Amino acid sequence: MATAADTAAMRRAVSLAARGLGSTSPNPVVGCVITDAAGEIAGTGYHQRAGGPHAEVHALRAAGGRARGGTAYVTLEPCDHTGRTGPCSQALVAAGIARVVYAVADPTPQATGGAGTLRAAGVRVECGLLGPEAEAGNTAWLTSVRLGRPHVLWKYAATLDGRIAAEDRTSRWITSPESRADVHRLRAGADAVVVGSGTLAADDPHLAVRGVADAVQPLRVVVDTRATITPAARVLDGAAPTLIAVGADADTRHLPGVDTVVLPAGADGGLDVHALLAELHARGVRSVLLEGGPTLAGSFVAAGAVDKVVGYLAPALLGAGPAALGGAGISTIGGAFRLDMTEFTRLGPDLRITAVPVPVLVPAVDAAGAVPVSKES
Amino acid sequence: MATAADTAAMRRAVSLAARGLGSTSPNPVVGCVITDAAGEIAGTGYHQRAGGPHAEVHALRAAGGRARGGTAYVTLEPCDHTGRTGPCSQALVAAGIARVVYAVADPTPQATGGAGTLRAAGVRVECGLLGPEAEAGNTAWLTSVRLGRPHVLWKYAATLDGRIAAEDRTSRWITSPESRADVHRLRAGADAVVVGSGTLAADDPHLAVRGVADAVQPLRVVVDTRATITPAARVLDGAAPTLIAVGADADTRHLPGVDTVVLPAGADGGLDVHALLAELHARGVRSVLLEGGPTLAGSFVAAGAVDKVVGYLAPALLGAGPAALGGAGISTIGGAFRLDMTEFTRLGPDLRITAVPVPVLVPAVDAAGAVPVSKES
Repeated sequence: MATAADTAAMRRAVSLAARGLGSTSPNPVVGCVITDAAGEIAGTGYHQRAGGPHAEVHALRAAGGRARGGTAYVTLEPCDHTGRTGPCSQALVAAGIARVVYAVADPTPQATGGAGTLRAAGVRVECGLLGPEAEAGNTAWLTSVRLGRPHVLWKYAATLDGRIAAEDRTSRWITSPESRADVHRLRAGADAVVVGSGTLAADDPHLAVRGVADAVQPLRVVVDTRATITPAARVLDGAAPTLIAVGADADTRHLPGVDTVVLPAGADGGLDVHALLAELHARGVRSVLLEGGPTLAGSFVAAGAVDKVVGYLAPALLGAGPAALGGAGISTIGGAFRLDMTEFTRLGPDLRITAVPVPVLVPAVDAAGAVPVSKES
Repeated sequence: MATAADTAAMRRAVSLAARGLGSTSPNPVVGCVITDAAGEIAGTGYHQRAGGPHAEVHALRAAGGRARGGTAYVTLEPCDHTGRTGPCSQALVAAGIARVVYAVADPTPQATGGAGTLRAAGVRVECGLLGPEAEAGNTAWLTSVRLGRPHVLWKYAATLDGRIAAEDRTSRWITSPESRADVHRLRAGADAVVVGSGTLAADDPHLAVRGVADAVQPLRVVVDTRATITPAARVLDGAAPTLIAVGADADTRHLPGVDTVVLPAGADGGLDVHALLAELHARGVRSVLLEGGPTLAGSFVAAGAVDKVVGYLAPALLGAGPAALGGAGISTIGGAFRLDMTEFTRLGPDLRITAVPVPVLVPAVDAAGAVPVSKES
């Protein structure tokens, strides 16, 4: 039975984990709080960047000798393997930790098993405390593990009648400075920002993060089947790395020194969305912010590759101009891509709506196959 | 200086007034609370329907002899003229009311002057208490007085990408039962519900109020330039009165017994919006709920005849299908119809957004021409 102190410590660990968003991929974000034998907080830490120490190691260093006989609260099951750093399970045992409470089991084959190692060494292990909160904080990484592709957040900014630009394609500015600043926060939390050639031609976007302290710049990705981008495009400056995805027939000779990748065509004539995501996944990208216009967004929806939607709605009406979402292979109301609105909030004069796909119901898994998100012992 | 008791009494009067919404046109909604000489509530009333007693008369009847030496709280300046009922100013004087507090001055030439009559009779008169709240409750009527046409609320229901139907025009149901019930509430508060021939052909809507207790049915209005409606249309049943607005060349011989009106053409090829509103105003309509599809809504926006927007947003995406708003004569972002979002709330899975046009700034009026919304004396 978790005490109020347990819950408070885990909540702090969840909050610490969030500080790593946007800089830990391909690793998850993880937070850790260590209390001494008397229950006082002795050390805290979070995973800051791939290749750097895990959260547990940071927290153990801070706790020093006070860790002996204490409790470690970790947002994710401690790892059991030697990667770029040693296994956290053994580090916790070596420090004399008596009890480990973790929020979410590690679903990766190579990392899982930490709980078993800890128990074998006589450590009390409990699982599931604040599981939903910790999962929410690690959504992108957990999605990427489960689906084998990056988590995709589609962001759009539109009027109340769903237009992203006027009839003459002007769009500066539909939404407010507050909304645009919020988009930079989304970029800072993503590993890659993706747009299509239509948005590139219309807006010449820069796509780097501005105005967010200590932000790690995301990989800027342009889906540009025919390699129409010019060397003067702002997205090709040195502010952040950039990748141009092109089709097999594209001529890229005008782009010397630019990182390009050739991808197969998709069903709708553009590039194959899953091939793009596989390429990004191979490059360590675990979270994608899709800022693409209606055509690219339509391809992602049609491919079943949108995991979250954030819409910035400006209180304005246009009556003409491109819609936020283009052809997604949906022809009748029964085929609508249904979502759950998880949050809405005012941003200056605008409204930000966050929604996630309605879960597809699958038959219940037998007890043997289910991962328990509950106290283990 | 208004006391807490004054404010409480006026708030009750504002609340009473709202009970008349949808049934008092062409009159305003008005609420009245009368306290006796000791400050105890002696009687309350509200204007229930045109031709019936005014709010003050209901309240005076309820108060009886206790009105003598008391205070009358009224949401609108008491009238000073004899229409279908006698002047309220004289009724208040005759009952021995010592003090009258009203929220909003009456802007109509024929009714104004009640305050002067009361003061001349030795009654203390104060104006402006809870003025904004009372104005908000009477928005439709006040708008109709100021503009000489009915107040227009445009309602739409769309997906997050602004579609009101799928590519194949199916639309049942984009929004939830909660949202659809809320639309009936809007209908019950309106004097007329207006749709175009496109919506008629697509949905064969009924447009009457269902599920709202004691609702007065609105006038159902179809804007049908070429008189394409068939006698079997649901909107032509007996559940509520119906008016078909047609163009000069329309052949209406297939509609015997149907109330039709011929209107001039507007700039966009449809019927002239202001001619339609003038016709409705002449029939006593003070508030219009525009449920028309994108074409008709575009005409209203282009005509500057939308005073409020209520959008029901369903958490779904379609990527194709008609947009909520069609051509409104806006070609560039600088010409966008800008609104202020005044309210947003969840309705089941949906989001309801309410917005009003950003006020057009006009030069300040000199003191002599301004209507004071403040304590008079």
